[in-house]
Amino acid sequence: MDRQEWIDRNRKYSVIDSASGFALNLAGMKFTPAQLDALKPKFAAAHQEMVKLEAGAVKNPDEKRQVTHFTDRAAYPSDPVFAEVEAFAAALRSGELKGGTGKKFEQLVVNGIGGSALGPQLMQFALNGPYWNELTEAKRQGWLRIYFVDNTDPAGVKDALAALDLEKTLVLSVSKSGGTQETKNNTIAFAHAFAAAKLSFVRHAAAITMAGSELDRQARSEGWLKVIPMAESIGGRTSETSVVGHLPAALAGVDFRSFIAGACHMDQLTRDPEILANPAYALAATWHIAGNGKGDRNMVIVPYSDRLVLLSRYMQQLVMESLGKEKDLDGKTVHQGLNVFGNKGGTDAHAFIQQLNDGRDDFFVTFIESLQDAMEIPIPGGVTMGDYLHGFETGLSNALLERGRQVIQIQIAKVDAFNLGMLIALYERAVAVYAELVHINAFNQPGVQAYKLASKGVIELTLAVQAAVGKLAGWKGSAADFAAKAGLDASQLVEIEGLLARLAANSDTRPIGAVKPKRRFDAQAASWIYEF
Amino acid sequence: MDRQEWIDRNRKYSVIDSASGFALNLAGMKFTPAQLDALKPKFAAAHQEMVKLEAGAVKNPDEKRQVTHFTDRAAYPSDPVFAEVEAFAAALRSGELKGGTGKKFEQLVVNGIGGSALGPQLMQFALNGPYWNELTEAKRQGWLRIYFVDNTDPAGVKDALAALDLEKTLVLSVSKSGGTQETKNNTIAFAHAFAAAKLSFVRHAAAITMAGSELDRQARSEGWLKVIPMAESIGGRTSETSVVGHLPAALAGVDFRSFIAGACHMDQLTRDPEILANPAYALAATWHIAGNGKGDRNMVIVPYSDRLVLLSRYMQQLVMESLGKEKDLDGKTVHQGLNVFGNKGGTDAHAFIQQLNDGRDDFFVTFIESLQDAMEIPIPGGVTMGDYLHGFETGLSNALLERGRQVIQIQIAKVDAFNLGMLIALYERAVAVYAELVHINAFNQPGVQAYKLASKGVIELTLAVQAAVGKLAGWKGSAADFAAKAGLDASQLVEIEGLLARLAANSDTRPIGAVKPKRRFDAQAASWIYEF
Repeated sequence: MDRQEWIDRNRKYSVIDSASGFALNLAGMKFTPAQLDALKPKFAAAHQEMVKLEAGAVKNPDEKRQVTHFTDRAAYPSDPVFAEVEAFAAALRSGELKGGTGKKFEQLVVNGIGGSALGPQLMQFALNGPYWNELTEAKRQGWLRIYFVDNTDPAGVKDALAALDLEKTLVLSVSKSGGTQETKNNTIAFAHAFAAAKLSFVRHAAAITMAGSELDRQARSEGWLKVIPMAESIGGRTSETSVVGHLPAALAGVDFRSFIAGACHMDQLTRDPEILANPAYALAATWHIAGNGKGDRNMVIVPYSDRLVLLSRYMQQLVMESLGKEKDLDGKTVHQGLNVFGNKGGTDAHAFIQQLNDGRDDFFVTFIESLQDAMEIPIPGGVTMGDYLHGFETGLSNALLERGRQVIQIQIAKVDAFNLGMLIALYERAVAVYAELVHINAFNQPGVQAYKLASKGVIELTLAVQAAVGKLAGWKGSAADFAAKAGLDASQLVEIEGLLARLAANSDTRPIGAVKPKRRFDAQAASWIYEF
Repeated sequence: MDRQEWIDRNRKYSVIDSASGFALNLAGMKFTPAQLDALKPKFAAAHQEMVKLEAGAVKNPDEKRQVTHFTDRAAYPSDPVFAEVEAFAAALRSGELKGGTGKKFEQLVVNGIGGSALGPQLMQFALNGPYWNELTEAKRQGWLRIYFVDNTDPAGVKDALAALDLEKTLVLSVSKSGGTQETKNNTIAFAHAFAAAKLSFVRHAAAITMAGSELDRQARSEGWLKVIPMAESIGGRTSETSVVGHLPAALAGVDFRSFIAGACHMDQLTRDPEILANPAYALAATWHIAGNGKGDRNMVIVPYSDRLVLLSRYMQQLVMESLGKEKDLDGKTVHQGLNVFGNKGGTDAHAFIQQLNDGRDDFFVTFIESLQDAMEIPIPGGVTMGDYLHGFETGLSNALLERGRQVIQIQIAKVDAFNLGMLIALYERAVAVYAELVHINAFNQPGVQAYKLASKGVIELTLAVQAAVGKLAGWKGSAADFAAKAGLDASQLVEIEGLLARLAANSDTRPIGAVKPKRRFDAQAASWIYEF
């Protein structure tokens, strides 16, 4: 392509919102006008579905529910819950509402996983930065430090406890269903920790969950400090603009109203039926063409911004959990999906981007640039540090294009709440309309059922193994011997061996009754031997 | 596969190191004995190359250098540099060596990018945890807090400065070549910040770089507190077991000797010529078979450990920068590569793993499990939190296998320095031998040259644009008008528009002489209009 064609293509395939300074530039993607035209009927149909969605149709047929994240957020700032959350946060900040021993709350544990954690983590990192917790109370203007416990790893709890002063800590458990096992486990762990410190957990506990859920019932019956309801019609991975994003943000001093305003502004832009006037549709169109409607290229997301390093992790959930589906809406097996990864530029140029330049041509990359620099840092020679960051981005983009690789460029005015809202709303809409193009349900996650069931089976086996070990003091033998001796299902030998290995590794801190299982390797038998 | 076959396959394709408790289980990968056999001649040749590599052959022909990370680390603990680093760290910890104003060093800035940052970040997070910086001096036993500045984003510098007390801060600049622009920019930024605070930067500055490099000359001529040399024969992405990993680790109280011991232990295990006795060869063999020797499947790395969340980012660089190559060793165009992504389990099961379960079958996943729990947290019902983590891993693995997906499982005894050393050495060797199998140079990164050159061009254009803007006070028009007016190359209009957008966005904090560029969108012309 000669330079003039390239310049024209940039003009033709840029979607610019002059009000916010947002721009999406798709010139670096390989598609022809004919390919875009061919998608028009699909988009016309998809657009009708998006209209229905916003009008309240059941768009998640598996769960028989509406999908209201696009519409609820416009109404949310005038909802009484919004005011309640703000008032709660203000009361903690001012010290009007104190912990059980009369101390001001200074630390917040957000206990949630997946959709209940990734959005709050992204927002906290993007808007308050990596070192927020280390800033003085004055620099934080009285807002709370934040800690995320987003798994069921004892190490995560231990690390948080080492940094927390429980007398000043609020534990916020977030689970839409209220039954998420990982979150439940952490609630139990913190309740134990408070009890061990002779503190009242319930006076330091808050919850966000659906009304009537297991967590809701527990929190209300025990008299937790605060329980905030969340809507059934908002899925976890699209809950960041709801109370799930709001409460942690409010407690850390984030201007959530501005974040919502940004999301709603993008919602306005992305209700346009014209593909090239609608940044979400334009984005989805290029994803579809690049990946042959099957996700044949990985989506690499590289924001040129330290503060946005978690964006790709957030988008990874949003895109892959929404689009990674076995069946389409007619029940046909399609194995859809779209892989997402990336960290941040220019750093990634010193890491995996060697492969993007030279290696497999199996991706398209999305660069996201903030026009405004956080600070002017002059570098001798007449430019600033920000000019270098921009120079590296432009240089890399040109080098990739030169080699025939595909590049999307997004500009935002700056990294702030409004623009973060725009970015999230953009991808939420792009994912929803892409799902329509490939005729799948973007709002369920059926794939997790199988593994949850299988995990339950392992927990049952764990109990059986422990019970047997407890009765076999003094015994020794292989895992197969053990299964036979204990009358356990020998077909589960692989799982049993895994459980015995753990019992042996943890026996010092967790004996099974009087038994402290050990293991040693018998080289001749090529097998571990366990001793109880 | 029936259960007995499955159990036999687990036994047959597990590589167990009983001394350390390490195990690699490849049973969940789809390969036949015949496919493994077919690789034997390739492995025999590759093994000879690995032997040559360790004997000191030039294995990076582009850069005409040896590759010594496997061998140097065995000797490193008895090298005088090792003792020098430990003594330096001890002197800072004790306060024997103080900052320019006589205060004890309490904070360390690691200024480095790519290979100079990812390893230290991984190690710090894995061994000292996410909240190390928030722990009291007593809990840190006098060791330093750590901050990473790993880009050239002014936001990164600003965030670090907000958390730092410069009188107590050591800035460690790490650049093998000594000419890395991003690192140089940060050095300049910190030198400015110290000067602005009327503090002596050189009494707070240290460097790790090759003897004779630009950074080395600067540090020595200015009299920096410490300069530690690094070997030319160790590449950035394999430098974590060298002084690059050592100095930051030592300053944060990490037992680096144990880390090296772990790496060397794995080096011993991975010098075995037999594929199934050598965990690195076995791993590389399954990568090769799964991806048809071309990386046709993404490598998803999911450690079931909060502390290891950065492992996939580290492996992403190690694998993709090493294997993502255009040419093979004979100059043939091959476009090799192997995509890597992932975060941590069980968390990821609530994010992208929906797609792995149900969506595209275009990956293999590697689960990494620590047998020892960080803490015993009992959950009502008779199991612990760690049992749940294990249960979720096993359940997910079984669910994936049930659906015909491919799974590698790695067990380590616990998350500590020794085991981290083992993991890093395992993947270093696997990558090196895989590169031999596909006949590429694993140790160069030619793809970055093109983008560095292109970036340099953008910086030159930046200077030209700024110079022109400074002379055009009162002028207004489009970017095209500007290019014509200023006599700039109109073929670079896309780049010029990008630069003008930045000047407008930052004009309040960075006027160009007397000019504060603004822009507004002219809807009729569908173009930004700039006003100087």
